[in-house]
Amino acid sequence: MSRLDSFIRRMQAQRDCINHVAGQVHGLPGPILELGLGNGRTYDHLRELFPGRDIYVFERQVRAHPDCIPPDNRLFLGDITDTLPRARAQLGPTAMLAHSDLGTGDKQANEELGRFLGPALDALMAPGGLVLANQKLHVARWTRLPEPPGVKPDRYFIYRVGD
Amino acid sequence: MSRLDSFIRRMQAQRDCINHVAGQVHGLPGPILELGLGNGRTYDHLRELFPGRDIYVFERQVRAHPDCIPPDNRLFLGDITDTLPRARAQLGPTAMLAHSDLGTGDKQANEELGRFLGPALDALMAPGGLVLANQKLHVARWTRLPEPPGVKPDRYFIYRVGD
Repeated sequence: MSRLDSFIRRMQAQRDCINHVAGQVHGLPGPILELGLGNGRTYDHLRELFPGRDIYVFERQVRAHPDCIPPDNRLFLGDITDTLPRARAQLGPTAMLAHSDLGTGDKQANEELGRFLGPALDALMAPGGLVLANQKLHVARWTRLPEPPGVKPDRYFIYRVGD
Repeated sequence: MSRLDSFIRRMQAQRDCINHVAGQVHGLPGPILELGLGNGRTYDHLRELFPGRDIYVFERQVRAHPDCIPPDNRLFLGDITDTLPRARAQLGPTAMLAHSDLGTGDKQANEELGRFLGPALDALMAPGGLVLANQKLHVARWTRLPEPPGVKPDRYFIYRVGD
């Protein structure tokens, strides 16, 4: 499979997983967290799915399309190891949905990131919240949920946060 | 439609259009031209579809994945207004397939680019060759072909070069 094929499937999986859980998030209060802004396409998708809802974005350095840059007071700018604890202090454990599309092609660095990310993100999540990630995360109180039809297992990861 | 939805459809259209014409290109001699390397995903797709075939890449500045960088003697590095005429001098009118995914969000700049691109690319194409582009191109001897099923009209453009 070419990198183009693989990329299309990954983007579809991301979109399909977000759409899949959106219905469960609509009725419940709490902000949404977007980890990794990139060019802002997924942020734009979240804005469309959840109009008027607080979406906090975490990004090391903003390089998004000008139309897809969050307002200053919804942007945690800097390294995720600094910004997640800062967000915890500001928001508490309130988030109902978190989507993480972090990492690079470096497998070892991604695993290290994952070990930090699980607990640091968990500290921000409300009970019953949902976490979507492009990598496996290990948090004792999270339960992995099945992907929607058409998404290949282990292409994307959906978790429900326990009580 | 969100930018994520729109991006997925554009990538699918690109891939489906390339796959659609691949069968017609397989039996005929002549190099392939890839205008705009980007991260190299589409170049990788072309390599997979046409193993062993000469693929010449045109890019202003290489920022692709390390696995997707063409060999030096297949890379025309620089502005397309310089590199296409250079390629014409080197290759002559021999290309059997050209794929162009150039341009930015600036509509006026894209139209200007298109006015240059049509004739400059035409000068490199063999009779009967195929051109795929993310923008409409106007060349008298080209005939527009229908997109494959599932690709929305005017999302991608397929042309056959006349005699």
